[in-house]
Amino acid sequence: MVEKILNFNDLTENLQQQGRRCSVAVVCATDAETQYAVLRAVREGFVTAIFVGGEQEVRQNPDFATVANEVRFVAINDAREAAEKAVALVRSGEAQVLMKGLLNTDVLLHAVLNKEHGILAKRRVLTHLACAQLDNYPRLLFFTDAAVIPYPTPEQRREQVRYAVRVCHAFGIDTPRVSLIHCSEQVNEKFFPFTVDYPQITAEAQAGAFGQCIVDGPLDVKTSCSLEALHHKGLQSPINGAADVLVFPDIEAGNTFYKAVTLFAHANMACMLQGSDAPVVLTSRGDSKESKYYSLALAVKSIHNDN
Amino acid sequence: MVEKILNFNDLTENLQQQGRRCSVAVVCATDAETQYAVLRAVREGFVTAIFVGGEQEVRQNPDFATVANEVRFVAINDAREAAEKAVALVRSGEAQVLMKGLLNTDVLLHAVLNKEHGILAKRRVLTHLACAQLDNYPRLLFFTDAAVIPYPTPEQRREQVRYAVRVCHAFGIDTPRVSLIHCSEQVNEKFFPFTVDYPQITAEAQAGAFGQCIVDGPLDVKTSCSLEALHHKGLQSPINGAADVLVFPDIEAGNTFYKAVTLFAHANMACMLQGSDAPVVLTSRGDSKESKYYSLALAVKSIHNDN
Repeated sequence: MVEKILNFNDLTENLQQQGRRCSVAVVCATDAETQYAVLRAVREGFVTAIFVGGEQEVRQNPDFATVANEVRFVAINDAREAAEKAVALVRSGEAQVLMKGLLNTDVLLHAVLNKEHGILAKRRVLTHLACAQLDNYPRLLFFTDAAVIPYPTPEQRREQVRYAVRVCHAFGIDTPRVSLIHCSEQVNEKFFPFTVDYPQITAEAQAGAFGQCIVDGPLDVKTSCSLEALHHKGLQSPINGAADVLVFPDIEAGNTFYKAVTLFAHANMACMLQGSDAPVVLTSRGDSKESKYYSLALAVKSIHNDN
Repeated sequence: MVEKILNFNDLTENLQQQGRRCSVAVVCATDAETQYAVLRAVREGFVTAIFVGGEQEVRQNPDFATVANEVRFVAINDAREAAEKAVALVRSGEAQVLMKGLLNTDVLLHAVLNKEHGILAKRRVLTHLACAQLDNYPRLLFFTDAAVIPYPTPEQRREQVRYAVRVCHAFGIDTPRVSLIHCSEQVNEKFFPFTVDYPQITAEAQAGAFGQCIVDGPLDVKTSCSLEALHHKGLQSPINGAADVLVFPDIEAGNTFYKAVTLFAHANMACMLQGSDAPVVLTSRGDSKESKYYSLALAVKSIHNDN
């Protein structure tokens, strides 16, 4: 049994070994990549699928027949209605994960965020959590936020830390190391306003506000992920060059990291939205089918609290 | 003769082929890495060196003897005085490039920025320009600003574009493609204030404000550097997935890119400060000796206007 998940292979092995299925509501799976991701997860035994929209296309997929018993369909073809129905399945408890197929992201988010019928509770923070598997880093590297919150408020920042720590715990990482990122190690109110809050968050983490974890910052990407770089700068940090989580100051930095490591370091990437009643798998058109599959696995694992 | 410089090997070959030396003032070269960079550049025929401080250490370097004719010394051991003297050498025209050895960056910058004796003319903008050589990108990728200007003003942004285009021209890139980076392709005043200025800069570029170049944005890192990613998003851009320059919205994004590609994509990196009367090679302790050597080559090439 894989106890501590260090890469995507560990993740999917762990899910297969647990042999427990959770239900995913998939909106408009008319594209081959979404079908691949979901049908593979069904075949490997960790999800059952409710396809809302896309029945005809899914039935034509050659991989469908062997897993038909673990799949059901809701016959809706309008994207907006399909999104609303899938969200309703989460509300009723029939689905524990929500996944986007081939529809406009705004349409799905509109249903998620709907004040009356949506799945984001009042005062909850919706944020993006990604997870990179890098050739030359010996563990998964979670990071937030590459896509949703432009400039996090202090409250949003704390939720980002809290969510990431919780997911790390689900991954069997008992004491995740969370690095609060900036371009230098200096707290500087005038030039780097985001850094002002970092020592306070660090202190709150030490007091146990986010569960068992180590938080430190400001640190840059390199001093967070390389002990050699940390020592070269003459610094000490409990992160010790072995960060599990990078919390980026804002969406520009987070998105730059996402795109840079995907394109230039061939990172495998999984991502999801956190904060809603169910995690939302919201990959984009350019993502590979493997990326969609790993994202689904990430979302499923994130709701296992009893690892 | 290398006409168009596509990688660091082209760069140093081009400099060797030109067979023209420029004079570099090196402050406190007491470390082996700075000595390596400078003495190699002297040996390869594209610089003469004035070491301000560090004479004893340089003379002990085994590589010194063969290039002694192209080296002179100024005997100063105090770092602050050495920085001031090197800056004075630039002011008097005896040096065309300034390079930092083993001293505190602030001390060197203090001398550079001194209102009376420094080398930053009034109203000139000092900014950081880096250049990455990446395994899977078929050209050098310049980017700005990873280290100096936190949140560029519209004037500073335009200078960043202007400087980068000028350096690309020196590298034989006739029509550099400059991408104004953000996390999405939307101009959004409320959420992404930096993007508001991008269409205006693009229009000014078309009108010739920055010399011959193509500017476009907002684009993200991936759509800037991958035609496939651009098309996946259903976008068109004259950058065409082949950016020569990435202009990052702010220092957090620029620094994240620098650290991410250095650490995870094994990028070779060169960088310098632009805007002062002479380019300043200001590598940091963690940089490799090769990185310092390429940075010096970059700075030397940047002042060749007659390529």
